[in-house]
Amino acid sequence: MSQMSLLMRHQLKNSHSLIRLNRCLSSGQSKPERPISRFPIPDISEIPSDLREVIEEAQEKAGFTPNVFKTLSYRPNEMRAFVNYHNAVMENREGGNLTKADKEMIIVAVSAFNKCTYCIIAHSALCRIYSKNTILADQIAANWETADIDDRQRAILTFAMAVAKCQPLSDQHFEELYKHSLNQADAWDIGSVVALFSLSNRMAFLTSMRPNEELYMLGRIPRPPKDSKL
Amino acid sequence: MSQMSLLMRHQLKNSHSLIRLNRCLSSGQSKPERPISRFPIPDISEIPSDLREVIEEAQEKAGFTPNVFKTLSYRPNEMRAFVNYHNAVMENREGGNLTKADKEMIIVAVSAFNKCTYCIIAHSALCRIYSKNTILADQIAANWETADIDDRQRAILTFAMAVAKCQPLSDQHFEELYKHSLNQADAWDIGSVVALFSLSNRMAFLTSMRPNEELYMLGRIPRPPKDSKL
Amino acid sequence: MSQMSLLMRHQLKNSHSLIRLNRCLSSGQSKPERPISRFPIPDISEIPSDLREVIEEAQEKAGFTPNVFKTLSYRPNEMRAFVNYHNAVMENREGGNLTKADKEMIIVAVSAFNKCTYCIIAHSALCRIYSKNTILADQIAANWETADIDDRQRAILTFAMAVAKCQPLSDQHFEELYKHSLNQADAWDIGSVVALFSLSNRMAFLTSMRPNEELYMLGRIPRPPKDSKL
Amino acid sequence: MSQMSLLMRHQLKNSHSLIRLNRCLSSGQSKPERPISRFPIPDISEIPSDLREVIEEAQEKAGFTPNVFKTLSYRPNEMRAFVNYHNAVMENREGGNLTKADKEMIIVAVSAFNKCTYCIIAHSALCRIYSKNTILADQIAANWETADIDDRQRAILTFAMAVAKCQPLSDQHFEELYKHSLNQADAWDIGSVVALFSLSNRMAFLTSMRPNEELYMLGRIPRPPKDSKL
Amino acid sequence: MSQMSLLMRHQLKNSHSLIRLNRCLSSGQSKPERPISRFPIPDISEIPSDLREVIEEAQEKAGFTPNVFKTLSYRPNEMRAFVNYHNAVMENREGGNLTKADKEMIIVAVSAFNKCTYCIIAHSALCRIYSKNTILADQIAANWETADIDDRQRAILTFAMAVAKCQPLSDQHFEELYKHSLNQADAWDIGSVVALFSLSNRMAFLTSMRPNEELYMLGRIPRPPKDSKL
Amino acid sequence: MSQMSLLMRHQLKNSHSLIRLNRCLSSGQSKPERPISRFPIPDISEIPSDLREVIEEAQEKAGFTPNVFKTLSYRPNEMRAFVNYHNAVMENREGGNLTKADKEMIIVAVSAFNKCTYCIIAHSALCRIYSKNTILADQIAANWETADIDDRQRAILTFAMAVAKCQPLSDQHFEELYKHSLNQADAWDIGSVVALFSLSNRMAFLTSMRPNEELYMLGRIPRPPKDSKL
Repeated sequence: MSQMSLLMRHQLKNSHSLIRLNRCLSSGQSKPERPISRFPIPDISEIPSDLREVIEEAQEKAGFTPNVFKTLSYRPNEMRAFVNYHNAVMENREGGNLTKADKEMIIVAVSAFNKCTYCIIAHSALCRIYSKNTILADQIAANWETADIDDRQRAILTFAMAVAKCQPLSDQHFEELYKHSLNQADAWDIGSVVALFSLSNRMAFLTSMRPNEELYMLGRIPRPPKDSKL
Repeated sequence: MSQMSLLMRHQLKNSHSLIRLNRCLSSGQSKPERPISRFPIPDISEIPSDLREVIEEAQEKAGFTPNVFKTLSYRPNEMRAFVNYHNAVMENREGGNLTKADKEMIIVAVSAFNKCTYCIIAHSALCRIYSKNTILADQIAANWETADIDDRQRAILTFAMAVAKCQPLSDQHFEELYKHSLNQADAWDIGSVVALFSLSNRMAFLTSMRPNEELYMLGRIPRPPKDSKL
Repeated sequence: MSQMSLLMRHQLKNSHSLIRLNRCLSSGQSKPERPISRFPIPDISEIPSDLREVIEEAQEKAGFTPNVFKTLSYRPNEMRAFVNYHNAVMENREGGNLTKADKEMIIVAVSAFNKCTYCIIAHSALCRIYSKNTILADQIAANWETADIDDRQRAILTFAMAVAKCQPLSDQHFEELYKHSLNQADAWDIGSVVALFSLSNRMAFLTSMRPNEELYMLGRIPRPPKDSKL
Repeated sequence: MSQMSLLMRHQLKNSHSLIRLNRCLSSGQSKPERPISRFPIPDISEIPSDLREVIEEAQEKAGFTPNVFKTLSYRPNEMRAFVNYHNAVMENREGGNLTKADKEMIIVAVSAFNKCTYCIIAHSALCRIYSKNTILADQIAANWETADIDDRQRAILTFAMAVAKCQPLSDQHFEELYKHSLNQADAWDIGSVVALFSLSNRMAFLTSMRPNEELYMLGRIPRPPKDSKL
Repeated sequence: MSQMSLLMRHQLKNSHSLIRLNRCLSSGQSKPERPISRFPIPDISEIPSDLREVIEEAQEKAGFTPNVFKTLSYRPNEMRAFVNYHNAVMENREGGNLTKADKEMIIVAVSAFNKCTYCIIAHSALCRIYSKNTILADQIAANWETADIDDRQRAILTFAMAVAKCQPLSDQHFEELYKHSLNQADAWDIGSVVALFSLSNRMAFLTSMRPNEELYMLGRIPRPPKDSKL
Repeated sequence: MSQMSLLMRHQLKNSHSLIRLNRCLSSGQSKPERPISRFPIPDISEIPSDLREVIEEAQEKAGFTPNVFKTLSYRPNEMRAFVNYHNAVMENREGGNLTKADKEMIIVAVSAFNKCTYCIIAHSALCRIYSKNTILADQIAANWETADIDDRQRAILTFAMAVAKCQPLSDQHFEELYKHSLNQADAWDIGSVVALFSLSNRMAFLTSMRPNEELYMLGRIPRPPKDSKL
């Protein structure tokens, strides 16, 4: 099992007990829970087996099934295309200079621009995990322009937001990246992360997708180093 | 060979000779042609064979290779995911109430909102072909709210634009569709066309994708009925 | 008869047969045609003779009566002022450096900013005819900032759009024009084209003015040179 | 001499002495005066005689030459068209239900939307004079939606602002006017005032037109009734 | 009694007689007067004595009770805090480089951005009085960017508007001030004037606060120098 | 010591050890910490004693000194006014129907509209504490319109956002509140919370105020009931 999934599990054990505690504490004022999606969610048994595997792997890794999988399983063909697109864009490209943390940071900024609750909450969690920075995602969700980012991160987000807003790109946009050891292929990477989550954000609005409660806490409690006594 | 591809061929023979004529007429004032994409375009021989087939089929059908294929072939994995996503979203769904013309109309409206030249030009052509209406696409590209559309089309575009703008959807948004013999599954179809082209529009901005010249005329000259002497 | 009106006639013969063909092809799905204007249109016989002449000349030149004339004839005094203003602004000024194609390009950009269907469609046709470029107008209507224009055209449109948006002008705005062999009098020309069509666009919205069907095709088929065998 | 020009003269005698006083008081801090227009202003002797008459009449009526005349005289043909358009739109139409005060109120609202200093200042003065209301124009310039206007005025401005913003008009927009004893011809009147000043506002931005100092005070001091001892 | 309050008294004597005249002239068309505030206004006797003193002093100074005092007296604790905040921000700071006229100019620009009628009218009056410039406030209310201001004033308003719009501030924003003999402490002064009137503007919207009629004329008639014979 | 401060202490013990852990974990990649404010922060000994008491009380209650106090102490008079205004607005009003949780929810929504990082982070913490809801603040910061709120909360935020945006208020705005057992005095409360934080947000932008790290976690871990063994 990978480092990351161990870390996520650790996080989730914390998250789960907190959610249980939370529910018990707020039991007096509870209102009927909003559904995960406006659209029907098929039973896991009805889902094609390749997608079922994808879902089970995510569940294994995260300790819970992210609601995006449940929501998208309404349309298996589209879900399959989405998963493949996601993998093509998000996996580390050989020779690529963007880290997973960079990509999650981009997604948080784009989703904040679009005010997409599901993607802000889910990718802020992933941003915390990959960046090992517990506060950056909240800052970017609030206002990326005033966030505590370095010049390279600022160049990345400036480029990303131009794409998110469908602004005409000039050579100047690319050259700002080149000043920070990023190249043309990295510019494509930034652009396709933005493009994919411009799609995702709209699917979340279409379906009124609800973020899993576990996501709000995920990555906020840093995993103690092995020799820690904390 | 399908009806549609015959129609497209007829269109293209017209388009091609016009473009040749055009070039000869404007030879005095010609400036060096802008490239298809900011990014390198691999030679057809370097493209994985499954994608090569996709491209060749498009070429066969259209009589030319739409620049979107050349541009995206820079990243085969992403292109494959895009093609699959496109097929999943654009092919007629069994029981679905949206026609191909409806979907192209949505794409033109979304792309006009984002001011995406490539997608406006390319999907206006497809809108003309599928709707057999030579002027509707231009009207929608100009201003969908003042276009000559019926109430059902207006309901579709109203829903589509709410998704395009990431506006929170209420039950009311869905009920407006239901008044026009559209159902919840159709609402998903509208939403995913919007989402996919929110992605496409941004890829076109990222790459400064240039529309093929053939696209501007495509579908403007209606195919004469077989017994016509025109 | 002028070169231009010969060219327009050639265009229109094409357009007319296409429209007839179009109507016959789409006869199955036809809906009652939207009126030319929300306001009453007087019979040609009721129109003051000087304006009747203007209309008949336009008809002669174009082969059809542009709907703007029918619409405005509701108010003869305002129509007369409009025609005179139009002539004062659009006719080539002695010593002026803007071509008719430049002016039509400006009108398309301003009308696209205002989403005015009538003016986009009508002046895209004129832009095609005067520029002898069959695709530029569609590009500018889609997004002037990404259109295939040269630096001089970009300077003209940048200035024009500042006026269209009522942005405060600084010396810098003028100096950008001077870099491209344009002078202060040309700046006025740009500004007054913008101003006049800021008026026109609003008259078209007020009246829900419908573009003539002929306009959509006009100028798309370049007129063959005299010795051409095409 | 008309009632109105007597009233304006009375106003101006006040304005002039105030401006003289003003200049004397603020002489310590005076900066070189900004020119009336960015463009050259021809000597009155160079202006075609029909336009010279127009200017002299305005001067006679107002006691000073409004800077708009000086500015526009740079282009006599356009000025002549503007004056004729202005007269066609602003003069009382037989059977029309809009008063001069209504029209000036519309101009102030449109010009405030466009932030056009010249037109706000000049037409606030005219609005005060025609409405005999010394505070309404300032309220409308600040925010027409919170101004002290009655339901009829609110219907007029709501319609006017829709045209000013190039919003698609529906039957509903017109019906709101009909509730207040206004008819279709009045709707045209509103729309053409808006359209003409959408042009004017842009000419003022193009030329950086400076309002005459007299305009700021004009109409603020109501003309005393003849038997008043004030 | 201070210079300023003498000046204000002079102004007000003029204003009052004008308002009386105004009312008599427009008596035919009068509509029931809009209330000062949507919220109840306590009788002066019910107001805590420290606030009553504040109100009476204002009344003494101005010759009338500005409606903001009546409106805010609905909540004495909030009013007391507002008055103290106002004094802390608006009184001349030792060593500060902003004049009262500068601060009033900022308030007019911020209030125009927010379209707050009460604050535009009231602070335009104060801007006229403190700047001894009878036309600047109207220009700034119309469009601060085209107003007749010098470079220092432009730097102040540029900074102020960035704060008003919650734009991220960079060192560059501050350095533009430093070029005009303003320092960091002055930057704070600008910012807190903007912040306080961002609050005020919203209180005026909340309460639909009505400006006193006296305010419209206040400061328009410059006080004659003592030896003047005008 | 109050219930609330006990709860806050519990929270903070957690936050503090997390921050220590955090710093140790991310020590490899640390960059020099951004200052709390752009402006100088006086030594606690230089601050007037009444304000020092305010700060020490806050410190006692929270376990750390919120950076807003340090930042504002640069200008004691303004800080004193701010504290008093804050108390007047935020303390429970006798007979008032807004809870502290309601007010914090409003502040988060307004601050998200203005993209003010400091206020989003700080008041999300307070919103979690007062509402005992660990996820609501994050939802509102992302998009209040899609947050899981009930009809009363939606009515409150709809009213609040109209004030935040300086929209003209009609009777209708108030009546929407009255449907949810809120009255006119409650409407004032909503409005003045909005107004005060419209000021706060701008002070945070002016000073580039940095949120304390403790705030990000505060209120995320619900305080266990006394008999809990967790």
